[in-house]
Amino acid sequence: MPNDQLLETILSSARAYSGSFLNIDQLDVELPNGHRAVREVLRHPGAVAIIAVDRDNRVLLVQQYRTALERITLEIPAGKLEPGEDCLACAKRELAEETGYTAHEMRYLAPIAIAAGYSDEIIHLFLATNLEAGEANPDEDEFVACQWMLLEDLIDDVLDGKVEDSKTVIAALLCDAISRRL
Amino acid sequence: MPNDQLLETILSSARAYSGSFLNIDQLDVELPNGHRAVREVLRHPGAVAIIAVDRDNRVLLVQQYRTALERITLEIPAGKLEPGEDCLACAKRELAEETGYTAHEMRYLAPIAIAAGYSDEIIHLFLATNLEAGEANPDEDEFVACQWMLLEDLIDDVLDGKVEDSKTVIAALLCDAISRRL
Repeated sequence: MPNDQLLETILSSARAYSGSFLNIDQLDVELPNGHRAVREVLRHPGAVAIIAVDRDNRVLLVQQYRTALERITLEIPAGKLEPGEDCLACAKRELAEETGYTAHEMRYLAPIAIAAGYSDEIIHLFLATNLEAGEANPDEDEFVACQWMLLEDLIDDVLDGKVEDSKTVIAALLCDAISRRL
Repeated sequence: MPNDQLLETILSSARAYSGSFLNIDQLDVELPNGHRAVREVLRHPGAVAIIAVDRDNRVLLVQQYRTALERITLEIPAGKLEPGEDCLACAKRELAEETGYTAHEMRYLAPIAIAAGYSDEIIHLFLATNLEAGEANPDEDEFVACQWMLLEDLIDDVLDGKVEDSKTVIAALLCDAISRRL
């Protein structure tokens, strides 16, 4: 099917919900068959996530309570982009705030569209190496606990369905795939 | 840090937005330090996604226009769970509707928390094999184009940042990781 038989035309957009950082727009669109439809789109400022790996191939993870899931999860450090903030600067800031670590090497891994069906959120994944410990500086009301895990063990937990967080699963599997291609 | 130093207590919840399938709740919570905070939580019905692989290690993908991203993406077939619907039944239904294919073997791969920071959405990933072609049956207003791609080429496109869709990236990398452990 040629691409022009897939394209929608956005006719208008209206803000349907304004939250603290999530917004929802309702878009009137024209479909390829000329029909009209309404699309519900989540607007998100975008985010970064950092897989920090030390010389022993251990990954730096954070445990935190996730209200949406009502449980404690194991995730790589991550955070939302501030307006106009550079991705790399944001990645360095979030890694330092949550874990205290700074990385002497940061490599851009990939952009990930988190929920292409309804959200414009892109998470920019970084690989942080050559790490140096420092003092964590979380917000007063942010509660995270750091934990190191061998990349190999993390992959096992992903394959066993024990680690469910999308960015963490992607970053771990990407690191594994990249290391095998070197 | 012991787990009870991470736990939040949900004090109350109020619906702040009701959409066609997305809802947003605002939750009052008590933090581990006794402070109060408001959490914005996206409620989603949950979804399934299916990586269908044929005997030649080719993956069945769908091209579609994604309004939220304003571009055509390449993704594995997927769809939302209907209320009370079984995940496996949903996976079979979505694969058949979007592509026409039925799978004589469906294996559960993993549950993925798409955006643990603010959403309760879980995508259940399935691996479909032993495929049989049939007639696709998309909704009248659904426009998708099927495309086959070698798993190896798909992984290359993921590593090159050309395939961005989270569930597609995870499913491709998981299949690759599993095949290397067999």
